[in-house]
Amino acid sequence: MVRTDLKMADGRTIFYYDNSPVTRQANDNRPAEDRPGVGELRLDLLTNEWVSMAAHRQTRAFLPPKELCPLCPTKPGLDSEIADSNYQVVVFENRSPSLAKPKTGWKLPANNGIETEIVEAAGHCEVICFTDHHEGSFGALPESQIKLVMDAWIDRTKEISKLDYVEHIFPFENRGEEVGVTLNHPHGQIYAYSFLPPRVEKMLAAATAYKAMHGKPLLTDLIAREIKDQVRIVCENAEWIAYVPFASRYPFEIHVAPKKFVPDLAELSEAQAAAFPAIAKESLQRLDGVFGIDMAYIASWHQAPVRKGREVLGLHWQITSIRRQPGKLKYLAGSESAMGAFIMDMKPEQSAAQLREVKL
Amino acid sequence: MVRTDLKMADGRTIFYYDNSPVTRQANDNRPAEDRPGVGELRLDLLTNEWVSMAAHRQTRAFLPPKELCPLCPTKPGLDSEIADSNYQVVVFENRSPSLAKPKTGWKLPANNGIETEIVEAAGHCEVICFTDHHEGSFGALPESQIKLVMDAWIDRTKEISKLDYVEHIFPFENRGEEVGVTLNHPHGQIYAYSFLPPRVEKMLAAATAYKAMHGKPLLTDLIAREIKDQVRIVCENAEWIAYVPFASRYPFEIHVAPKKFVPDLAELSEAQAAAFPAIAKESLQRLDGVFGIDMAYIASWHQAPVRKGREVLGLHWQITSIRRQPGKLKYLAGSESAMGAFIMDMKPEQSAAQLREVKL
Repeated sequence: MVRTDLKMADGRTIFYYDNSPVTRQANDNRPAEDRPGVGELRLDLLTNEWVSMAAHRQTRAFLPPKELCPLCPTKPGLDSEIADSNYQVVVFENRSPSLAKPKTGWKLPANNGIETEIVEAAGHCEVICFTDHHEGSFGALPESQIKLVMDAWIDRTKEISKLDYVEHIFPFENRGEEVGVTLNHPHGQIYAYSFLPPRVEKMLAAATAYKAMHGKPLLTDLIAREIKDQVRIVCENAEWIAYVPFASRYPFEIHVAPKKFVPDLAELSEAQAAAFPAIAKESLQRLDGVFGIDMAYIASWHQAPVRKGREVLGLHWQITSIRRQPGKLKYLAGSESAMGAFIMDMKPEQSAAQLREVKL
Repeated sequence: MVRTDLKMADGRTIFYYDNSPVTRQANDNRPAEDRPGVGELRLDLLTNEWVSMAAHRQTRAFLPPKELCPLCPTKPGLDSEIADSNYQVVVFENRSPSLAKPKTGWKLPANNGIETEIVEAAGHCEVICFTDHHEGSFGALPESQIKLVMDAWIDRTKEISKLDYVEHIFPFENRGEEVGVTLNHPHGQIYAYSFLPPRVEKMLAAATAYKAMHGKPLLTDLIAREIKDQVRIVCENAEWIAYVPFASRYPFEIHVAPKKFVPDLAELSEAQAAAFPAIAKESLQRLDGVFGIDMAYIASWHQAPVRKGREVLGLHWQITSIRRQPGKLKYLAGSESAMGAFIMDMKPEQSAAQLREVKL
C-alpha cells in the first residue's frame, strides 16, 4: 500500500491509498472556502452522556444526482472532493465535520452539575471512499480492493490515535436510504471521539468485569461459545468467524471477529488483515441474499479505546440491518429508543439459518 | 373515574375507564384462542444488557384497513378487541405481548458469563386506547378525555406496581408510520419490565450521584436552570413546565415535567394530574404546528423504578420527533446506534424558538 498526501483547496488533507506506486499530484482547483466552525459538546445530565451539537450541518449535501456526486473523481463539469481523475481508495476530513480539531489546551470537563461547561466538539471526522465507481457496494468490490480499504482503515486508526484529544476511533458504513444515507457512492466514515461514547463505556465496563471474573477477554469466550453451539455461525475462515450474536438486537445482525484477540485494527496481523476481505464479502452477500435485495445496513468497527481497555475489549465488525421481512422494517420505537430495552421479533438461530441457506 | 373490569374471550382482562358510572357488560363473543407463549430474555454480555426475544410477534397486525381496526369498538361485521359498542378509555393486555407473566418462582439471573441462563421474558404489556374514534390523535382530544387517559395511566401504574416480577413501568405512545406504528387508532402502550431497562439504569446512576453531590433531585435543578435561562421553555402552567432539554438529542424534543418533584404517575397530586391535559395539548399542538403536519413522535413517561431510586428520579414526559425539516428525517445511524453518541444538527434554543412561534 502506498499513501500520497495532498492538500485540498480549503486546507484539508486528502490521502490517496494505492496498491502500487503511482504519481498523484492533481490540484484542487475549487475556490478556497472557509472551513465551518467547530460545534459544541453538551453534557446530558439525565444520563451523564455527551451530546454533540453541529448546527452547521443542516445544509449538507442530501442525495445529489449522480452527475454532481462529490465522491466521484473530478471530471469535466464536476469539481468533486477528489481532484484526481481516478483513485483507488481516498480518505479526507469531512467537509462539515460533527467533531473537529479544538483549540490548543482543550480538555473534556468533569460533570459539575448544571455548571458543567459547554466545550468545543473536539474530535475528527473523515470520509473514506471505497472505490471511484459511483455504482456498487462494499460487499461487491474485488477482494484486493477490500484489502486496500482495510489497509486504509489500519493506517487511519494508527494516525488518528496520535491526536491527543482523541479517545476512541470508530470506522463505519451506513448503507441505504433507510438508515439515512445522503450520498449513494460507496463510502464509509471514520468518527474519532474526544470522549468514550456511551456504548463503548458500557462495553468497557462489561469486558473489564468479565476479565476480572473469568480471566479471559470476553470476546474470546463469546467466540468459543459460538464454535461450541455452531447454530449461530454464518461463515468462517482460518482467521475470522462471522456469527449472529447470542442476544442479537436486530432482525439481521452479524458479528465478524478475528479468532485471535486484538484490541484494534492497528494491531491486526498481516494474516488477519489478508483474510478479512473474503469473510466480509461472504457476510454481506449472504445478507443481501436473504431477500434478494440490497439490504440497508450499518457496519461498525468496534475497537478498544485509544488509551484504555486494550487488554479486555476485542476488535469486531458488527453489521446490523433493520429489515425484518421484505417490506417490513424494524423501527426503534418506545422501548428501544426511550428505555434502551431491545425487543427482537426473531431468534438469532433463525436468522443465522436463513443467512447460511443463501446460495452464493 | 370509574373502572369496570371484564374478561376477554381468551382470558385477558379488559379495563373500561369512564368519567361517570356506566354499565359495561358486553361479552367478548370471539372464539377462545390460546394465548401465545412467553418469549425469552437473553443477556447481551458485550453490554451486560437484557434483550427480549419475542418470536411469536412476527405475525402481529400490520396497518389493517380502518374497517378491520382491532381498537375500534365492536360493531356489525367487526369483532374487535373491545366487545362494547362504545368506550371512553380502555386498557387490556397486548394480544402478542413482548413481556408476559412468568411461571411462579421466576427470578432474574445474575450475570454468570456465558453460563448465564436464558429465562422467560417476564413482564407485562398493555394497550391503552385513548378514544373510541378511529381518526384523530392524543393532542387533539378534549382536555376531559386526556384527563381520563391520565387517570387510567395513574391507575395502571398503581396496579402493575403490585406485580412482584415488575421493576419498571413505562407508558408510551408511538405516533406515525415513521416510527413504526402498526395501528393508526389513537392508542398507547404500557410496558412493564422485570429488569431495569438500560437507560433507566443510567438515569438512576446519574440521579443518585447528583443527589449525593448536590443534595437535591437532579430534575429539580434542571427545571430551575430552564426557568433561569428561559430560552428553551416551550410553555408552562401552574403545575407543569415544557422545555427543550439543554442537551437535546432529536430535532424536536420536548420534556414536560411537574414543577414539584414526584417519582411516578401514581404519586401525582390531584392538582398536578388536573393541570396535565392543558400542557400536553399545547406541547403537541406546537409540535404539529412547526411544519403544519402531523409530526411522528415517541412520547415516553420516564418514571422512577417501582422499588428503587424513588427519592432521586423524577417523573417527566419526553416527546421526541425525528423530523428535522419537511421531507427530512433524522436517522439513528452509525454514531447513535453503534456508539450511543448522539449528533444533533440543531441547537435546542433554535427548536424551542420555533415551537414558541407557532400560532395556535
